[in-house]
Amino acid sequence: MNELEKLTEQIIKFRNERDWQQFHNSKDVAISLVLEASELMEHFQWKSANEVAAYVEENKEAISEELADIFYWVLLLSHDLGVDIKSAFLAKMEKNSNKYPVDKSKGTHKKYNELHND
Amino acid sequence: MNELEKLTEQIIKFRNERDWQQFHNSKDVAISLVLEASELMEHFQWKSANEVAAYVEENKEAISEELADIFYWVLLLSHDLGVDIKSAFLAKMEKNSNKYPVDKSKGTHKKYNELHND
Amino acid sequence: MNELEKLTEQIIKFRNERDWQQFHNSKDVAISLVLEASELMEHFQWKSANEVAAYVEENKEAISEELADIFYWVLLLSHDLGVDIKSAFLAKMEKNSNKYPVDKSKGTHKKYNELHND
Amino acid sequence: MNELEKLTEQIIKFRNERDWQQFHNSKDVAISLVLEASELMEHFQWKSANEVAAYVEENKEAISEELADIFYWVLLLSHDLGVDIKSAFLAKMEKNSNKYPVDKSKGTHKKYNELHND
Repeated sequence: MNELEKLTEQIIKFRNERDWQQFHNSKDVAISLVLEASELMEHFQWKSANEVAAYVEENKEAISEELADIFYWVLLLSHDLGVDIKSAFLAKMEKNSNKYPVDKSKGTHKKYNELHND
Repeated sequence: MNELEKLTEQIIKFRNERDWQQFHNSKDVAISLVLEASELMEHFQWKSANEVAAYVEENKEAISEELADIFYWVLLLSHDLGVDIKSAFLAKMEKNSNKYPVDKSKGTHKKYNELHND
Repeated sequence: MNELEKLTEQIIKFRNERDWQQFHNSKDVAISLVLEASELMEHFQWKSANEVAAYVEENKEAISEELADIFYWVLLLSHDLGVDIKSAFLAKMEKNSNKYPVDKSKGTHKKYNELHND
Repeated sequence: MNELEKLTEQIIKFRNERDWQQFHNSKDVAISLVLEASELMEHFQWKSANEVAAYVEENKEAISEELADIFYWVLLLSHDLGVDIKSAFLAKMEKNSNKYPVDKSKGTHKKYNELHND
């Protein structure tokens, strides 16, 4: 069992002990992901890049928790939908490598389709 | 190096090869997390629980990609903010175990504060 | 001056009295819109359609406030970007009428492009 | 009938002609609000304040449409939930005036509770 599978197993064990699977329909879990991502984003609102740096230093723990919450829901939802998140991630990295070849995309932030329309 | 560190290293290598770190300020990366989570949620909109099940079966790959995108940005942002995502996750699981003791939370979806006000 | 212009004027007067325009760059205001919309959505999470109805009845005021917050930021951002929101709305309604002709779209929720591919 | 009521009536007439009310449960409509707000926010991503200004000038119509979409869903959802959006807005403005008195909040962006803890 790889590490992500082990962390996922920990989440499912936690859920089963509390008999909470009955509440976790995928639509509401997807809503949780948006809500947690919004909470994370809120930390950066109304701040310049410099202010963000100082703020993050002072609020490292709160921000770590938000990231952990998102990570948690990604693993849980992947499990419930039968998605192997590690494989999905590696497939996406492979796809991105093909979409953004180094020689065409270095130092530029153009989108894939623009790059290929050059 | 644990598995999450290895996957993170892969992301950073991909980014460095393209010289893209200059674009990745944390505020915009946090926006990406919200945008990707919204895209994932959109798959579930206007659908009942039954319709979701059938839809997921037919759109497994697209949904896997959305999950991979969110996972990608969580690892990247954790890296950039100096957050060890595995430790953050384990700390959150510990905290949740204390907040939601099995005997008080089994089968109920009450919030933490309500539980402790019983 | 139409009614929406009057309400907008009220917002701008409130802001000017507090000298707050300096904080309202459009990017952060757009973030506010997402945050407020997320807060509204949270009211409906983990609830079936029946549960939503009862919940809304009991929480009418809180939900009204969330809607008012979104409405507020739409008017403020439209003002700051030089968008006449009433004209923009009427143009969108016109566009939707053309995209979704009654005879093709009645009782069906197919998307515009699917409808036109029939 | 005030102007907002007239615009709302136009939305409901459009919906009734297409027999679309059956699809508009409040939870999914609230999801629409988040999705449209996210699309609007995406226009501002990866851009500095200066870049935003130039971008908005060139993409005024697309941005107007996003604002119109959000405005549309706010009116529709207010209608469906029995919320008088104009009254809700005026009540919120009144509340904000009390929360942020001019003499305490001028030129500062502190939150309400901080202001009152001074």
